[in-house]
Amino acid sequence: MTQIQIGSTLTYDVKQPTIFLLKIAAAWTQHQMVNNERMTFDPPLNVEQCQIGPDGNRLHRVVVEPCQLSISYEATADLTPDIDRPREVGESQPAQMPPEVLTYMNPSRYCESDVLARFAYEEFGSLKPGHSRAQAICDWVFDHLEYTPGSTTSTTTASDVLLQRTGVCRDYAHLAISLCRGVGIPARYVSGYAVDLQPPDYHGFMEAFLDGQWYLFDPTRLASTLGLVRIGVGRDAADVAFCTLTGSATLLEKNVWANLLEDPSGVGRNPAVSTA
Amino acid sequence: MTQIQIGSTLTYDVKQPTIFLLKIAAAWTQHQMVNNERMTFDPPLNVEQCQIGPDGNRLHRVVVEPCQLSISYEATADLTPDIDRPREVGESQPAQMPPEVLTYMNPSRYCESDVLARFAYEEFGSLKPGHSRAQAICDWVFDHLEYTPGSTTSTTTASDVLLQRTGVCRDYAHLAISLCRGVGIPARYVSGYAVDLQPPDYHGFMEAFLDGQWYLFDPTRLASTLGLVRIGVGRDAADVAFCTLTGSATLLEKNVWANLLEDPSGVGRNPAVSTA
Amino acid sequence: MTQIQIGSTLTYDVKQPTIFLLKIAAAWTQHQMVNNERMTFDPPLNVEQCQIGPDGNRLHRVVVEPCQLSISYEATADLTPDIDRPREVGESQPAQMPPEVLTYMNPSRYCESDVLARFAYEEFGSLKPGHSRAQAICDWVFDHLEYTPGSTTSTTTASDVLLQRTGVCRDYAHLAISLCRGVGIPARYVSGYAVDLQPPDYHGFMEAFLDGQWYLFDPTRLASTLGLVRIGVGRDAADVAFCTLTGSATLLEKNVWANLLEDPSGVGRNPAVSTA
Amino acid sequence: MTQIQIGSTLTYDVKQPTIFLLKIAAAWTQHQMVNNERMTFDPPLNVEQCQIGPDGNRLHRVVVEPCQLSISYEATADLTPDIDRPREVGESQPAQMPPEVLTYMNPSRYCESDVLARFAYEEFGSLKPGHSRAQAICDWVFDHLEYTPGSTTSTTTASDVLLQRTGVCRDYAHLAISLCRGVGIPARYVSGYAVDLQPPDYHGFMEAFLDGQWYLFDPTRLASTLGLVRIGVGRDAADVAFCTLTGSATLLEKNVWANLLEDPSGVGRNPAVSTA
Repeated sequence: MTQIQIGSTLTYDVKQPTIFLLKIAAAWTQHQMVNNERMTFDPPLNVEQCQIGPDGNRLHRVVVEPCQLSISYEATADLTPDIDRPREVGESQPAQMPPEVLTYMNPSRYCESDVLARFAYEEFGSLKPGHSRAQAICDWVFDHLEYTPGSTTSTTTASDVLLQRTGVCRDYAHLAISLCRGVGIPARYVSGYAVDLQPPDYHGFMEAFLDGQWYLFDPTRLASTLGLVRIGVGRDAADVAFCTLTGSATLLEKNVWANLLEDPSGVGRNPAVSTA
Repeated sequence: MTQIQIGSTLTYDVKQPTIFLLKIAAAWTQHQMVNNERMTFDPPLNVEQCQIGPDGNRLHRVVVEPCQLSISYEATADLTPDIDRPREVGESQPAQMPPEVLTYMNPSRYCESDVLARFAYEEFGSLKPGHSRAQAICDWVFDHLEYTPGSTTSTTTASDVLLQRTGVCRDYAHLAISLCRGVGIPARYVSGYAVDLQPPDYHGFMEAFLDGQWYLFDPTRLASTLGLVRIGVGRDAADVAFCTLTGSATLLEKNVWANLLEDPSGVGRNPAVSTA
Repeated sequence: MTQIQIGSTLTYDVKQPTIFLLKIAAAWTQHQMVNNERMTFDPPLNVEQCQIGPDGNRLHRVVVEPCQLSISYEATADLTPDIDRPREVGESQPAQMPPEVLTYMNPSRYCESDVLARFAYEEFGSLKPGHSRAQAICDWVFDHLEYTPGSTTSTTTASDVLLQRTGVCRDYAHLAISLCRGVGIPARYVSGYAVDLQPPDYHGFMEAFLDGQWYLFDPTRLASTLGLVRIGVGRDAADVAFCTLTGSATLLEKNVWANLLEDPSGVGRNPAVSTA
Repeated sequence: MTQIQIGSTLTYDVKQPTIFLLKIAAAWTQHQMVNNERMTFDPPLNVEQCQIGPDGNRLHRVVVEPCQLSISYEATADLTPDIDRPREVGESQPAQMPPEVLTYMNPSRYCESDVLARFAYEEFGSLKPGHSRAQAICDWVFDHLEYTPGSTTSTTTASDVLLQRTGVCRDYAHLAISLCRGVGIPARYVSGYAVDLQPPDYHGFMEAFLDGQWYLFDPTRLASTLGLVRIGVGRDAADVAFCTLTGSATLLEKNVWANLLEDPSGVGRNPAVSTA
């Protein structure tokens, strides 16, 4: 078991009555237990908490009157990942994939896998199917992009990134997702907390469906897949923005952290990790 | 109750072993009963049938060896729509929307509502919220586009359509969906059968979430919302393609029909129709 | 005659041998005399000065070794514009336009007039041809965009701007140019110095070919067309970047000014101004 | 000397008074003599003929009343290309390029070299400068695209082509031009007649500025650079459309031919050819 202490604080200047949809709480999955969880609002507010969909995604919704609002979240996540030898993980056949997984083959806002299918097929179509092929895609993304904060915007898509060759974690994930879908591997976006991420922030990584389960990848290589605490999954970053506002508020401050409390042992290098 | 006889036949030249994902069967919803349903394959095949997600979408999956394949689907749909006076249908507040509906506020592959939000807000932001505003958006789309078969491709998005001002039913729906999302109305794509559609084909229309339920709209005005039999709903057309192939097969022939068997009566003109 | 004192200073940190192409000197045209011109480099450099094309565009090219480089430009421009009553200026017919003007009907990098032609035609196709129609296009651009520094990047095109509805001077010009071309009016980008521009900077405006000559417009309304000193014209901003570098250098400081020395008199409000 | 007989016939159904701008006549350059030229219109029309710009581009303009119009063009082109050994042709330095050549470094409508610069630099930045590098770019384009009539439209750009990996001659040329500009080689589009092109049509190829002159390349490999008769050059296909209409007319028939009359001899394989 890996035990990770996570948390974040957000401060907003709320200028008019505003609805906040927050996606900052750790997901509840079979492989991720969330303990000692505490979400506080200053000033205090009525919070509506809901779980969305079958993947453990959670949502906190609050209605806020004009004020300076502080949101604070803390929890401990206990991860019990399935850890496999990468070379033993193959790909799933479309004829066997669960229907709800097929959705993650479709193109989405930031992952135009339809446009990139031919490129993906040319570059990765002849590789041996399996975890190693998804890893090869992530390696290609890492090798060909330059991590450049500020080089992309909220409308930048995987196609843009493939052409301009720069981006941040969400862009890396979007491109890797698109290329996986392009060769027939269902893939989705995961937002979360990452141990020792520098600079500290929420992180975006990706999951590929292989051999009947979802495996984690971080194409930025900024974090270990063993130290990723998931907040939520979606088709791409559009589904898991940490905060969506209806009204008017300005983010003044954001702090995010994830610290390893207890370390796994006996795990080989670069294992295939699954926590969905 | 409206009773509609629907059906379609598809003929494919299958060149190598191919997996077909078919989305041609009518959905099962509270307001849409499907009777006398028959799906046949010639040559005969083992068919896997599944329901996907909470909205009644269905999927038929078959694995096909090289052959000439005929797929035939027939059913009778009994529609018992909620029919309301449009002027009495308001909008839902984000603070009250069910969490699973919030998903349909996110931008998607063909509906970049983030990019179009400002345009939507300028054109429709000051209109009175409610069914009439969604209708105004559909009217605007109808007035500003020219229905032009062949003017768009499988990669054409709502932004493209807004600029080029031409498209077919899926493009009309994508633009209307994007503009609805842009002013804060959850909206989604519906594929289906439409009574008396000319030329006969599967149809694409849209649904907006208003006053706690999903209401149907057809921005092309090619069909009555009372004569729409839904196959499936999704964020946009990417989710409800009538056939997705893995392998190699060519569509040789497609026939689609929808005939009204029994007519509703006592319904005023242009009612607000909900069958989700 | 309008007399305007213009100038700019640029400071660069030059990190490796770098070629600078500078487009900051006032153009030489029939209606714009340039006097008391002085361009200095510190440290001193051999400067190659050339005129490019038939429109008075000038270019200064220098090769710079690593250093901190200061570039200083000053001049006095005497403008003797043709000033007409807008309502008396019609449009030119394609059958009569000089061949070199036809080039400015073609789409260009930032002005995809082909994509926007249908939109332009719908909005402005039925307006009376002439200066008033080009003015109506500029008014529309002014009314529908919000001047927002930082909202666009070096790859933002007129289509993007039409959708997102924000931009800076170059974006306003690109959209107005595209819409003019879309209704058959040749239009081009003009870079220059603008009297009393706030905040001070190089300015981007546009020129439309009407009744046999080029007329100036500023869709941002940030400057008077009587106080515009042209640097150069091009199809769009790609042609008249104030500085293009081959090598590596960082802009540390930029100061731009334009002061009215002598004022024209007897000019009515909103005249049609031509200085090409 | 290479002597080539060229010609084309175009038949239009002209529905209303229409202005035709024709770019179908062979250019006049130092290395391309045009003899026995005949352009006829049936019914007969007053034709305005002009030369545009310094590159030998020509334009025929006619105003046509409603009718069925036949346009016929024939000529003999005598080519006296500079033929060099590719390995001896280097690149020009930006500090030495003639100012009018610098224009062909700018991005244009279909050649967004700014967007593709990083890609170009990664793939081709470390290759030895010279004719061989431009050839390597054309080879890459040939190797990675599939020639597919109908796969692109009039709005398809080099970025689109790079992603979708299909196109026709104009798309091949646009991508090669963009990649050349991306590594600092001025490049432009050439329209023309190509000996033995299959299927017969106007052809699009490209020119790169190397060692002080323009060299021809055909990234499609459908034609020999020794058998190319230029019509015109431009930044991309937008500048050299064979026919631009203002009014309404439909192309009914198009025939294009180019036959070798006299063959050059003593030329090695794959020479570097310059005819600008």
